[in-house]
Amino acid sequence: MSDYFNVPAIQYEGLKSKNPLAFKHYNADELVGGRSMRDHLRFGCAYWHTMRGAGADPFGVGTMQMPWDDGSASIDNAKKRAHVFFEFLTKCQLDYYCFHDYDIAPEGKTIAESRANLDAIADEFSSLQSGTGKKLLWGTACLFVNPRYMHGAATSPSLGVYAYAAAQVKKAMEVTHMLGGEGYTFWGGREGYSSLLNTDMKRELDHLAAFLHMAVDYKKEIGFTGQFYIEPKPQEPTTHQYDSDAAACLNFLREYNLLDHFKLNIETNHATLAGHTMEHELTVAANANALGSIDANDGTANVGWDTDQFPTNIYLTTQTALVLLNMGGFTTGGLNFDAKRRRESCEPVDLFHAHIGGMDAFARGLKIAHAIREDGRFSDFIKARYSSWDGELGQKVQAGQASFAELEAFALENGDPAQSSGRQEYLENLINEFI
Amino acid sequence: MSDYFNVPAIQYEGLKSKNPLAFKHYNADELVGGRSMRDHLRFGCAYWHTMRGAGADPFGVGTMQMPWDDGSASIDNAKKRAHVFFEFLTKCQLDYYCFHDYDIAPEGKTIAESRANLDAIADEFSSLQSGTGKKLLWGTACLFVNPRYMHGAATSPSLGVYAYAAAQVKKAMEVTHMLGGEGYTFWGGREGYSSLLNTDMKRELDHLAAFLHMAVDYKKEIGFTGQFYIEPKPQEPTTHQYDSDAAACLNFLREYNLLDHFKLNIETNHATLAGHTMEHELTVAANANALGSIDANDGTANVGWDTDQFPTNIYLTTQTALVLLNMGGFTTGGLNFDAKRRRESCEPVDLFHAHIGGMDAFARGLKIAHAIREDGRFSDFIKARYSSWDGELGQKVQAGQASFAELEAFALENGDPAQSSGRQEYLENLINEFI
Amino acid sequence: MSDYFNVPAIQYEGLKSKNPLAFKHYNADELVGGRSMRDHLRFGCAYWHTMRGAGADPFGVGTMQMPWDDGSASIDNAKKRAHVFFEFLTKCQLDYYCFHDYDIAPEGKTIAESRANLDAIADEFSSLQSGTGKKLLWGTACLFVNPRYMHGAATSPSLGVYAYAAAQVKKAMEVTHMLGGEGYTFWGGREGYSSLLNTDMKRELDHLAAFLHMAVDYKKEIGFTGQFYIEPKPQEPTTHQYDSDAAACLNFLREYNLLDHFKLNIETNHATLAGHTMEHELTVAANANALGSIDANDGTANVGWDTDQFPTNIYLTTQTALVLLNMGGFTTGGLNFDAKRRRESCEPVDLFHAHIGGMDAFARGLKIAHAIREDGRFSDFIKARYSSWDGELGQKVQAGQASFAELEAFALENGDPAQSSGRQEYLENLINEFI
Amino acid sequence: MSDYFNVPAIQYEGLKSKNPLAFKHYNADELVGGRSMRDHLRFGCAYWHTMRGAGADPFGVGTMQMPWDDGSASIDNAKKRAHVFFEFLTKCQLDYYCFHDYDIAPEGKTIAESRANLDAIADEFSSLQSGTGKKLLWGTACLFVNPRYMHGAATSPSLGVYAYAAAQVKKAMEVTHMLGGEGYTFWGGREGYSSLLNTDMKRELDHLAAFLHMAVDYKKEIGFTGQFYIEPKPQEPTTHQYDSDAAACLNFLREYNLLDHFKLNIETNHATLAGHTMEHELTVAANANALGSIDANDGTANVGWDTDQFPTNIYLTTQTALVLLNMGGFTTGGLNFDAKRRRESCEPVDLFHAHIGGMDAFARGLKIAHAIREDGRFSDFIKARYSSWDGELGQKVQAGQASFAELEAFALENGDPAQSSGRQEYLENLINEFI
Repeated sequence: MSDYFNVPAIQYEGLKSKNPLAFKHYNADELVGGRSMRDHLRFGCAYWHTMRGAGADPFGVGTMQMPWDDGSASIDNAKKRAHVFFEFLTKCQLDYYCFHDYDIAPEGKTIAESRANLDAIADEFSSLQSGTGKKLLWGTACLFVNPRYMHGAATSPSLGVYAYAAAQVKKAMEVTHMLGGEGYTFWGGREGYSSLLNTDMKRELDHLAAFLHMAVDYKKEIGFTGQFYIEPKPQEPTTHQYDSDAAACLNFLREYNLLDHFKLNIETNHATLAGHTMEHELTVAANANALGSIDANDGTANVGWDTDQFPTNIYLTTQTALVLLNMGGFTTGGLNFDAKRRRESCEPVDLFHAHIGGMDAFARGLKIAHAIREDGRFSDFIKARYSSWDGELGQKVQAGQASFAELEAFALENGDPAQSSGRQEYLENLINEFI
Repeated sequence: MSDYFNVPAIQYEGLKSKNPLAFKHYNADELVGGRSMRDHLRFGCAYWHTMRGAGADPFGVGTMQMPWDDGSASIDNAKKRAHVFFEFLTKCQLDYYCFHDYDIAPEGKTIAESRANLDAIADEFSSLQSGTGKKLLWGTACLFVNPRYMHGAATSPSLGVYAYAAAQVKKAMEVTHMLGGEGYTFWGGREGYSSLLNTDMKRELDHLAAFLHMAVDYKKEIGFTGQFYIEPKPQEPTTHQYDSDAAACLNFLREYNLLDHFKLNIETNHATLAGHTMEHELTVAANANALGSIDANDGTANVGWDTDQFPTNIYLTTQTALVLLNMGGFTTGGLNFDAKRRRESCEPVDLFHAHIGGMDAFARGLKIAHAIREDGRFSDFIKARYSSWDGELGQKVQAGQASFAELEAFALENGDPAQSSGRQEYLENLINEFI
Repeated sequence: MSDYFNVPAIQYEGLKSKNPLAFKHYNADELVGGRSMRDHLRFGCAYWHTMRGAGADPFGVGTMQMPWDDGSASIDNAKKRAHVFFEFLTKCQLDYYCFHDYDIAPEGKTIAESRANLDAIADEFSSLQSGTGKKLLWGTACLFVNPRYMHGAATSPSLGVYAYAAAQVKKAMEVTHMLGGEGYTFWGGREGYSSLLNTDMKRELDHLAAFLHMAVDYKKEIGFTGQFYIEPKPQEPTTHQYDSDAAACLNFLREYNLLDHFKLNIETNHATLAGHTMEHELTVAANANALGSIDANDGTANVGWDTDQFPTNIYLTTQTALVLLNMGGFTTGGLNFDAKRRRESCEPVDLFHAHIGGMDAFARGLKIAHAIREDGRFSDFIKARYSSWDGELGQKVQAGQASFAELEAFALENGDPAQSSGRQEYLENLINEFI
Repeated sequence: MSDYFNVPAIQYEGLKSKNPLAFKHYNADELVGGRSMRDHLRFGCAYWHTMRGAGADPFGVGTMQMPWDDGSASIDNAKKRAHVFFEFLTKCQLDYYCFHDYDIAPEGKTIAESRANLDAIADEFSSLQSGTGKKLLWGTACLFVNPRYMHGAATSPSLGVYAYAAAQVKKAMEVTHMLGGEGYTFWGGREGYSSLLNTDMKRELDHLAAFLHMAVDYKKEIGFTGQFYIEPKPQEPTTHQYDSDAAACLNFLREYNLLDHFKLNIETNHATLAGHTMEHELTVAANANALGSIDANDGTANVGWDTDQFPTNIYLTTQTALVLLNMGGFTTGGLNFDAKRRRESCEPVDLFHAHIGGMDAFARGLKIAHAIREDGRFSDFIKARYSSWDGELGQKVQAGQASFAELEAFALENGDPAQSSGRQEYLENLINEFI
């Protein structure tokens, strides 16, 4: 194990500790409702942010101090980074990680060179996994950094670009499979448009669907049994991403007969950029039995781009945990911190502060959500609120066997129903009781 | 015919006229691409705004001068309004109109009383239609004003409210049918939520789907052949409307096997509140063969509620007309001005300025869009941009018969494709050539 | 004392209590940092929302059950409402209240009639104040509901309207003075524009400034010593309100030599609609020594209008309390709940849930903010971060006595300074330690 | 003159031309209201976008084809770029340009090296100016790209960074002066905050004001007579920029006695990100006699970051030209295209399409605005709308000599004024008459 971070392994010390490099809430083996926190939360670390995020933004170059990184695109440098990364995972008790192909290995000048680089690094990751017990939550291919993909990858107007993307995804799936990845994510990078003036949206979406069907075929061919995910985002980098929100993704999957093969990977800051709450997007996905995994982060309410901040808001983590517990917990996927330190948090120790904060916030949210469910006042309220549907007529409507005429007869007989309060303020106060 | 407006009938006088009460562009019988402007545009007037919009807002009471209206909920007053309305339609050359049941007739204390009121007024409308040649574009039921619907109608937690809504929609469909309505619209009024804390979203959506299936059944039963529409809106009055945008509606319709029975009624200001452009929403709907009708209005970019302004932006009307012409024009539906004068435009003549402006803006957009299509530079550009897909491999992909292996082989052989510009700036300049 | 609410007086029962009609955190006499919670928080109740908010919105009529209100515009009804209101204040331990003139008294057909109504009701309030010990935090005039003010009041293009507004404000100031009001608020109702096409912004602002100078003069004339407040809001009802945010208000006050006479009344939901955080607006105001009072509420992040929700977010109340404690607490003003129940919370008891939640959230925020200040880690961090300014050169710059040449010499000698982290993630975690 | 663009010089060919590389509207010597278009519009080109904008975004590397640029940080490469730039200015009939110091010259490892680089390049620019007649609209210093400035420059918590910035601005002012620059712009790069948790806003603003006072002093010292500008922007790169909008800048300038020395440089996309319209921000600045210059671009309504698109919207350019003509035209400053091609517009010819489109759009807006003013219907409407103020009482109020008592007397005598329409729809239609 490398030792590049001048930071001790992070332990659970609980609320009394004033040590900022300790968990206050996350205690991996502690049981919550009969299941360990580790199994509930399945924390993942994003290689792109944690190891490759240099802090550049549209107005400035990188700021991050990464003494282990010589800045080169060499294989040696890539390997060194990998060692540092597994040190970090281990010290931080992060059980999973996620990557894009060209985060971990340098893209070469040809497909062949790129693949050789990727194979070399993947071997290193395989060995590091064995040595540390860390696991790959999901892999993916970077289809947005290279200028080749400026007009899109699976939605490019150029067949040549599309073919290139197919070759890249094919390889990324193989590497993910080799590393025992539990999933593979399709985030629509530049699948969208800058302007409808030059875009044939229908044709592009047909191509995207064909692409995903080929991925499904190839998955079977190689025996990869991990889950496929689609990740909604409304805009950025394109002006309008096709996978704009959970409903848009589900609509696409239904239209092209892909819903059996994909679940959604919901990201907080993407939900809010789409004008929704995270809770809404999680619920839409869960209702369609399609909530697969979570990209855990947060945004800044008054700015209009993806800030990918570490989540520390207890309300957010509580709501997220409630949806998860209500659906029975993750079956695939986990809580991947698709999050980065602020550009001004330029010291390596800031990586620890950032991840500790996110993990503690979710551990706390989990405990709160569990307590809310145990308490029962929320579920009792909901049950009572819909109780008029539990009788014969309600059941008949729900079974699709009623008619307007029957309902009209009921209305004519019963007249105007009594009004009752939705008790939103009471319920908001009740949430605070648990925080 | 009544004569409540001290305004002459609006005629086409063309660009040279300095008369603000004349059309500068809209010439109903003028042919554009072999079809009259009237047939292309099928302008509709919204009874709720034009006759019932008093100018109240959350911070003030009504301001509009309506000398014909005594403010009472009497049948006589309702009839008088109807006469004034048809005078307005006639003077303004608006061929269609739309209504909610309780815009045109006062809601009574019981279902029976409400129905009697509605029948009386519907007879008056029928007679006015005959006398003027005006037609009903679509009807609908008001399921949001009455406190009974505060928690929703077809998504109410109360079965009694749901039944009441069913009785109301049943009657509204009958009246629409009797008046020869060419469509019936379901706008989700309060179908959504204020807070997920008290809401079972899945159950509510199941109920909504059952409701719409009963509407489809009843439509067949009474022989109503008009088109059903769903109208997307992301929020307002609820914090989150279920029919949030075109994709969310399509997803819902697909999930519940309703897509054969519904098309979308797309509204400009709803599109922009959802974080989309109108052009995007129209294209999403048209691509699904589900663009049925349009609620033509506009919003104010820097405010966050539905301002329902009259559309006067030539870019907007051009884009709208382009989507319409590209799909072959309306098969059902039309351009219904779901738009209201500003609260400060309190004089009756402002109704004329408002509608004239909207009609002229669309007439102009239609002529521009037609010229763009005739010119061919846009379509040629798009055709060329996607031309790599027209060969054998592209066709194979589009037919769903290709594999990642074939594409990989192509990529390995051909390497990195050449980059070419998307020419957005050129195309934006080109649009201005036509304006 | 009336007894219209079937609810007991709200007591402090603390965290163990499962009684939703009890305070869990607010204990009026408990000392926090040597000052009672009551004195720190100075809670106020908004007459317009609590007694006059019927739950109407742009899509529906009122929903609220107010069995004490006969719906008439009679003096008797107005008096009855006043009694119910003071019962509510008393039961809820709210020490202050705020009103608009025509919330409490019906506007008459003439100025004289309106004034007579207002005098009659003001006498009743005076007597109720004496009987209960409740106090008037601030009064104001309603310059936005009546159609007369549709184009603005102090910025109306009509001198007649302007004069009418002056007469109304004059009287409202007199009544506020008579009731011992501790302040008077100018919220810019319709002072702004719908469209710049018909607006002379410069002239309107000149008129507004003249209006406020006359108010300052009249205040002196009658010996009213309460504080004047201006309340920023970016839009709604107008498309663009002149007092758009704290900085815009301060700029206006400075330009027209009014800054000595006004402080700001900052409202949470107005801050967020302006694209700021509440913390930002409070800090801008406090830095200018102009933070006078707070309209305490909250908004919904993904909607674009003023929702005026009750504040229950602990992060928000903590940040607010921190700014208050850092500036030494309120000198004038208080925390006025300019907040309303959701339209669906239609039962009288919901008023209690709503206010209890807000009061408890601020009590908790106060305790947390106090603990943060006692702990000292935040202030120590800030102190250290700016410590390079505490030396000779820094002091010289701050005193306005340095030059570019001196700084250049320093830079040439010292070269590039070392980078250090802003530690945002650490500090965000630290906040959670206190929650 | 270099010849790197395979594009002819752009000429005025007028509306009939189908040549996309010709002006349709901009005819430099054509008189509009007695002044040439060139003198009205004073078009500027932004060196940073046009020569240094490689098309990178947060999700991808550069895409732009710049065959003249070897990608190195050498002086020779910098000189070559300068030659290409002046070729572009000449071919495109752009009379002015703007730059940041380290756009044009590579920053060195030390202040001394950077200055030597800058001097070498400035000499080249001086010579190119002489050879082509092109002029420097304004210069500025880049205080945001280098990691040193990550916490701000003139608002940095580090005195060392502040001194470094002072040295850099001092030199940039000297170079601007040497090149005959007509202005110098202070855009607040990273002057703002990521989080208030680690920020002393008051202290930072005091430092900023001291910085600007030193700049004013130094300007006098070296005899630079160009205009100083401050450029508002609400956010990006920081979460909250101090110079958030025109009003915030004016407030700051007034508070610190700097208003005599600065005017504003208003940018379209910054105005819209701040929740305003461009027309609003221009009017606020013009009303304070502080509209100095314009950064002409446009944004995309449904995205939340600065897209810096080329302006092609005729409504926008018309509104901008109206404010300019109403204030008598530019006294300093001009229309600097702070705009970039879309990342997908990767070919050199796209630079021409982009600038031609912007110049034509403004030429057209200028002609429309002139026609509107000549026509007089708008100004007549405004004059009439405020005419009640032109009498004795109105004048007395405007002179600050009236009292509430006088206005009250007027109101009591005259009662409720008659309501009249604001005619917004009529005026919106009228705008379209001129387009």
